Amino acid sequence: MIYAGVDIGGTNIKIGLVDINGNIIADNSIKTEPYEDYKNTLEDIVRDIKLLCNQCGIDYHDIAGIGLGVPGVVDSRTGTVSYSANLGWRDVPIVHALEVASGIHSEAANDANCAAWGEYKFGASKTMDNAILITLGTGVGSGIIINGKLFDGVASAGGEAGHMIIVKDGKRCNCGLKGCWERYASATALIEQTQEAMDKYPDSIMHDIVKEQGKISGRTAFIAAEKGDRAGKEVVDAYIDYIATGLINLGNIFHPNAFIIGGGVSNEGPALINPLEGKVNSGLLANEYNPKVRIIGASLGNKAGIIGAAALVM
Amino acid sequence: MIYAGVDIGGTNIKIGLVDINGNIIADNSIKTEPYEDYKNTLEDIVRDIKLLCNQCGIDYHDIAGIGLGVPGVVDSRTGTVSYSANLGWRDVPIVHALEVASGIHSEAANDANCAAWGEYKFGASKTMDNAILITLGTGVGSGIIINGKLFDGVASAGGEAGHMIIVKDGKRCNCGLKGCWERYASATALIEQTQEAMDKYPDSIMHDIVKEQGKISGRTAFIAAEKGDRAGKEVVDAYIDYIATGLINLGNIFHPNAFIIGGGVSNEGPALINPLEGKVNSGLLANEYNPKVRIIGASLGNKAGIIGAAALVM
Repeated sequence: MIYAGVDIGGTNIKIGLVDINGNIIADNSIKTEPYEDYKNTLEDIVRDIKLLCNQCGIDYHDIAGIGLGVPGVVDSRTGTVSYSANLGWRDVPIVHALEVASGIHSEAANDANCAAWGEYKFGASKTMDNAILITLGTGVGSGIIINGKLFDGVASAGGEAGHMIIVKDGKRCNCGLKGCWERYASATALIEQTQEAMDKYPDSIMHDIVKEQGKISGRTAFIAAEKGDRAGKEVVDAYIDYIATGLINLGNIFHPNAFIIGGGVSNEGPALINPLEGKVNSGLLANEYNPKVRIIGASLGNKAGIIGAAALVM
Repeated sequence: MIYAGVDIGGTNIKIGLVDINGNIIADNSIKTEPYEDYKNTLEDIVRDIKLLCNQCGIDYHDIAGIGLGVPGVVDSRTGTVSYSANLGWRDVPIVHALEVASGIHSEAANDANCAAWGEYKFGASKTMDNAILITLGTGVGSGIIINGKLFDGVASAGGEAGHMIIVKDGKRCNCGLKGCWERYASATALIEQTQEAMDKYPDSIMHDIVKEQGKISGRTAFIAAEKGDRAGKEVVDAYIDYIATGLINLGNIFHPNAFIIGGGVSNEGPALINPLEGKVNSGLLANEYNPKVRIIGASLGNKAGIIGAAALVM
């Protein structure tokens, strides 16, 4: 059986053909055009799935299902996108429309949920019925698996852990609140924190690293810290502490088997994961009597969205 | 069918006989003795259940089940109390021991979870498959119902929303962390905040209220605010804002049908509930596209524990 997984982003749409074991047979990426009508986007997607089929010698009609990951609030039960800021969609009956456009059984879910589902079915949290994927990227995304099922609240309006307030009356977030976790723990926030430290410490080797790499990035402070730079280490420690704060909150509420850390920052590997594992577990209530919560890097990388979307229809 | 519900507290044990509709037929309270051996506590409980049966002319052997609410980490699947600070219990096979002592089928759960279960089965959240009970008392307790089932994480080690960090590096909490929600939103915290405002505002009528009532309480600021006292209103507004912060966090994560507010402070009624409903919903992500989350006062009062515990075995 072959399935199609579609990961719609604000800039690009990633599309792949995926087998029953979660292996990507073929994939590519098309531009997210700013169409007035969402049906044009679906036509682009169907056209591209047909193209991928042709490339691989697969009969389009053998595609057993299409799974769709959408950035926004997606009510999986009704197959409706309630709201997507990035795509400008509101109350879009996406699953029905995609089935009409493709002639193939379809499902849809929020993009972070798709990634969590992919990691659960084929990735880092494969054997874990209770796992939470946290993506540290432009924002902080979350996908929650409880008892082997995706959880995102009534009308799929929950699952937005990035907007937990961890610093009451703190920095203003895009969502309108102040002090949201993503305002401190996203890659965007890390870059901001790095910039602030560079302003404060003109002697830090972070200045050289930025010159070398052409720009400040989420890697800057980690590279500096690894080289023993005090300012870089300060940035990294404080940043990890912010991540840990949100994970402690989620740990005291959900006590999952594991947190799966994805997004660009997760490429830091042990320098990120190891201190997190210590900080988070020591912050959990009655931690000496409870099972540990593991912290694990995501394993599907930026293909988690495609694979997870495809897994929705398996 | 008659069931026994037992709500073990650090000071007293509340015990009741409950019918299938959640009505308490008879109940009383016995002292929580500081026994070395937990089995002595269970003997006290069984003796009291027999006493209640005698009083009502019910045959003890007609009791269809005993439900037990315990303050601490209770793994409902294994029937074990992993840890109870109040009772000094650790790794106690409570369900097995209670069945041996009573000869009756038994179940156990955390006390806050029992209360949430009681409100779901027979109280304020009766028709709501997704509801979170928050008790504002000495601490902040939480009981989470997802899709009609109690949720408390792997090994029942979760469900501790009171220990969400909402003020990073804030006030030190008994749990060892800093800035926990319960440090700001419990009745204990309200009294502390009231005291601070009284020190700051010697002209506030809160001083008269305290003199009249003999002591400062969670009611002091609410009474003053109702009478138009500026300092009292300041305390109440800030306190409600702290409660709202935690509810917004839980709302963005869980998006339940409702939050049920219990504990002593919930007796303030509309003065507490109405502003909370506004603040919480306006803080939820994409709130204009999502169903509202209702805020409702708990309806079973301090009998929720007994009724919920009994409902465990129904």
